[in-house]
Amino acid sequence: MTELASIKPMRQRMEEYINNLQDQIVIALEKLDPNSPPFKRDSWVRAQGGTGRSCVFAVPPNDEARSTNSHESILEKAGVNISIVHGILPPAAIRQMRADHTSMPLPDRPEGLPFFAAGISLVIHPRNPHAPTVHANYRYFEITEPKSNTEDDPTTSPQVLAWWFGGGSDLTPSYLYEEDAVHFHSTIKKACDAHGPELYPTFKKWCDEYFFITHRQECRGIGGLFFDDLNEGAHKRLSPASEVKRPVNQEEIFALIQELGNAFIPSYLPILTIRHSTPYAPHQRRWQLIRRGRYVEFNLVHDRGTKFGLMTPGARIESILMSLPETARWEYMSEMGTEEGTEEAKLVQVLREPRTWIA
Amino acid sequence: MTELASIKPMRQRMEEYINNLQDQIVIALEKLDPNSPPFKRDSWVRAQGGTGRSCVFAVPPNDEARSTNSHESILEKAGVNISIVHGILPPAAIRQMRADHTSMPLPDRPEGLPFFAAGISLVIHPRNPHAPTVHANYRYFEITEPKSNTEDDPTTSPQVLAWWFGGGSDLTPSYLYEEDAVHFHSTIKKACDAHGPELYPTFKKWCDEYFFITHRQECRGIGGLFFDDLNEGAHKRLSPASEVKRPVNQEEIFALIQELGNAFIPSYLPILTIRHSTPYAPHQRRWQLIRRGRYVEFNLVHDRGTKFGLMTPGARIESILMSLPETARWEYMSEMGTEEGTEEAKLVQVLREPRTWIA
Repeated sequence: MTELASIKPMRQRMEEYINNLQDQIVIALEKLDPNSPPFKRDSWVRAQGGTGRSCVFAVPPNDEARSTNSHESILEKAGVNISIVHGILPPAAIRQMRADHTSMPLPDRPEGLPFFAAGISLVIHPRNPHAPTVHANYRYFEITEPKSNTEDDPTTSPQVLAWWFGGGSDLTPSYLYEEDAVHFHSTIKKACDAHGPELYPTFKKWCDEYFFITHRQECRGIGGLFFDDLNEGAHKRLSPASEVKRPVNQEEIFALIQELGNAFIPSYLPILTIRHSTPYAPHQRRWQLIRRGRYVEFNLVHDRGTKFGLMTPGARIESILMSLPETARWEYMSEMGTEEGTEEAKLVQVLREPRTWIA
Repeated sequence: MTELASIKPMRQRMEEYINNLQDQIVIALEKLDPNSPPFKRDSWVRAQGGTGRSCVFAVPPNDEARSTNSHESILEKAGVNISIVHGILPPAAIRQMRADHTSMPLPDRPEGLPFFAAGISLVIHPRNPHAPTVHANYRYFEITEPKSNTEDDPTTSPQVLAWWFGGGSDLTPSYLYEEDAVHFHSTIKKACDAHGPELYPTFKKWCDEYFFITHRQECRGIGGLFFDDLNEGAHKRLSPASEVKRPVNQEEIFALIQELGNAFIPSYLPILTIRHSTPYAPHQRRWQLIRRGRYVEFNLVHDRGTKFGLMTPGARIESILMSLPETARWEYMSEMGTEEGTEEAKLVQVLREPRTWIA
């Protein structure tokens, strides 16, 4: 750890990092499709404390209605959000957190506890059914001691009771290209491996478990990484740091987070670049919209982040639901995906039995 | 109560009633649009006990992809389901039910309790944005004493610990036609009023409360009826039967249920008949799809029936999610519905402040 790094609190360093990463990702996507409108940048202030910036891509609907000859945008809908928020976590939310984050003892205070959260969250839905949807999210969380009323010196930082990082990234194709899955997983594995040999296999498995649509008995996509609760203490899914190398302090975990954040563009953009211009038939678009229906089901029924957001008073609904696709489709007893030997059935199979993409 | 009626158990009478009602409704819808394909009738058996029949309307997707000159079906997607199921309610589900159904003391048995449920459930999404979506559901529920192993005489019925009826019907337009709202509410009010003066106002209010999308702070539609827990005991929302007339026994409640079920066709079909051919512009279709997105949000995030279904092992997912529209749309920070004086804003206003449609 350098002298300089230690001067700034992690809150501020994470905020600066996700700010830069958001810019890089949005600019890279805009560069890929210069003939489409740019992302809409939209800064907001949360009345209860905090700020954020949404960068959203959407095609003006009137153009889309008769896009016969006009340019077809590479993206259909995409959002790259950052938010830096703070406030008081109500007791119910603390109890929820204590259950989820068992490695961190949080006191159960009736008046709640102050929290701080800084994160980047993105979902990209391309238009072409051969180009996969991608999701990524990296976040830093702090629970602090309530400030006493007597000390109101703004330069003193409150005592941190608990902090952790969480995040991940995962790919959701409508059609399976094994080489894309391998590229995506290789890129994020490489980013993990520099920080410890257990990280990729552990977070890959966690991802398969988390992004599982119980009522459909299938995964949302072909996986990636999912993790939470990374801090300097023990971790319920990782071996003790004394036995297997892994990031053991805030500095080392932040280094991992940055490496993963930086791996996002190389993990996804080459895939989008290749697939966005693949010719497709109407039934492939139809299948893509059915798959988007499943994406909606996961996000509204299962995703903890979305559920937490929808229950939070004063939450910014438009940002929480930005992850939903522009269009989704539900067919009763659809035959798509059920006929063996089809490309649709090939995807369904891999969603039912998550595969090991790289040894 | 006639001698004949009392001979058959309510289970069987309800089953016969919903069977007939399903036929009537499906045939009425098919008659309205003879040039479209008929409903697909689809009987199923539940491995854990029970049967059902789904009647579903959907347009073959290949036709729809290039429907420039071809006949446009009146319906876009519709499902009219009946199910007659039985099994063991696990303790968690009993606890949930005890909380929801406070007027009925249910024992908390670690081994669970046998239940029986017979119901009809329908959702109709027409294609034309001027024609409203409608939902209706009528159900009969029984909790019984476990059968002892020694008595396996199939002619003895198990002792009923609790029984109740529930149901309702509500209208979800994309564009507000006040005369449609008044027609719908008048028809169902008339059906209620014959059975007691408090029923319509009580169930109308309950409907506005139940079909509320908390995270959007708006109702799903312009209301109708919602009720649960109707049995011979006290009811938390209704005055004692000694003070205000209301159905007080199984026979009288079943009469109300039948009157409401029979009111479905006259409450909705005249509206669909008038509105299905109203000319519409692309932005009106777009608004309809955004409203369908809200319908999906309610059903997946809030609806107790859907949530209960998704958590039930062995539940028939295709039947549970049949209520979802064929297509839904999500726009980030859409301007539609926000511009004062527009038809879209007029709908939003009535969703935010439920109106009294008939005094």
